[in-house]
Amino acid sequence: VPRTAARALSTPRRTRKDARRNYAQIVAVASAAFAVHGADASLEAIAREAEVGPATLRRHFPTRYHLLEAVFSHRVAELVERTRHLAEEPDPAVALVLWLRSVGSYMAASRGLAESLMQGADQQLDVTFDGETCYAMVLAAGDELVQRAHAFAVLRAGVTTEDLITIMYAFCIAADQAHHDAGIVDRLLEIALHGIFSTQPRTPG
Amino acid sequence: VPRTAARALSTPRRTRKDARRNYAQIVAVASAAFAVHGADASLEAIAREAEVGPATLRRHFPTRYHLLEAVFSHRVAELVERTRHLAEEPDPAVALVLWLRSVGSYMAASRGLAESLMQGADQQLDVTFDGETCYAMVLAAGDELVQRAHAFAVLRAGVTTEDLITIMYAFCIAADQAHHDAGIVDRLLEIALHGIFSTQPRTPG
Repeated sequence: VPRTAARALSTPRRTRKDARRNYAQIVAVASAAFAVHGADASLEAIAREAEVGPATLRRHFPTRYHLLEAVFSHRVAELVERTRHLAEEPDPAVALVLWLRSVGSYMAASRGLAESLMQGADQQLDVTFDGETCYAMVLAAGDELVQRAHAFAVLRAGVTTEDLITIMYAFCIAADQAHHDAGIVDRLLEIALHGIFSTQPRTPG
Repeated sequence: VPRTAARALSTPRRTRKDARRNYAQIVAVASAAFAVHGADASLEAIAREAEVGPATLRRHFPTRYHLLEAVFSHRVAELVERTRHLAEEPDPAVALVLWLRSVGSYMAASRGLAESLMQGADQQLDVTFDGETCYAMVLAAGDELVQRAHAFAVLRAGVTTEDLITIMYAFCIAADQAHHDAGIVDRLLEIALHGIFSTQPRTPG
């Protein structure tokens, strides 16, 4: 009897644990599949790769839209977590650069997704989760790093978190539209960080 | 007889002069109309504004595409001329900033046009005139200013003309896509010119 009782108790727990594992596994696989194949990636292939049946995938995500939304939400949460983690980086300038690169990677991976989610709308970050837009979430997390960088006078006076996100957004869509390799974003960021102008002008000699 | 001969000679001359005037006038009006109303601007309104009949407009520009092409070519020529003019500006840093702003204005005005010309292609500057792409023409003219700025060590070492054009392109499409006011381009350029980073980091006080 205790054995049966133990089984009766453990089964739903194991099921919930399995369900959570399945959910997380599907989202992780889908995130990679959408990044590689775009928002039209095969749902069958995703289920296969995540080692779940098509019925399980459908139970968690009734439509492709639900899965896209979960992947997008997952990526925003990852970026926000990474941003908070960077607040512990001792050098505020290093934290800022690592944050900008993370914002760039997030944008590069999410651009197509966000467009699919908004069905043609063009403002990539304005998807809402729990009443807060992704843009607001990314902005609020970034603000902490930016304020710290200002406190250490690492940032040029007057430069805002929004300026920095817009600059990364600009570089990412330019790289995308001009079919440049991803390396161009790092190159442009490097120039923008230190300035187009040299700090030591001299007469030609 | 001399009078008739004079008239016979002068008539085609006057006609050619009128034709040139009409052509230039149509292109100038169309350039403004396309900038305001986009590539679908009314050809009738353009003819009216340019004070020519619809038949005259059609004789010069058999299709809307011919007119779009003439306007685009005219703008590229204007930018190249402005760039050459800036080479005479005594301060190479000032010349560079004025050039970057001109590139931005050209891009802002030409973006929709270029897209119409290429019918959906996304690389805005790659339209060909006389076998040379607009991009190559804009680049070659800019190179002179950039080389001079490098000679005076005004520019950060390693920054290329292509980098600068890509940065302006990035800021322009970001401003466009995010429905920002045009002022954002100047703001982002200002940050990129002097750098996101402050040049004098200090400990917080």
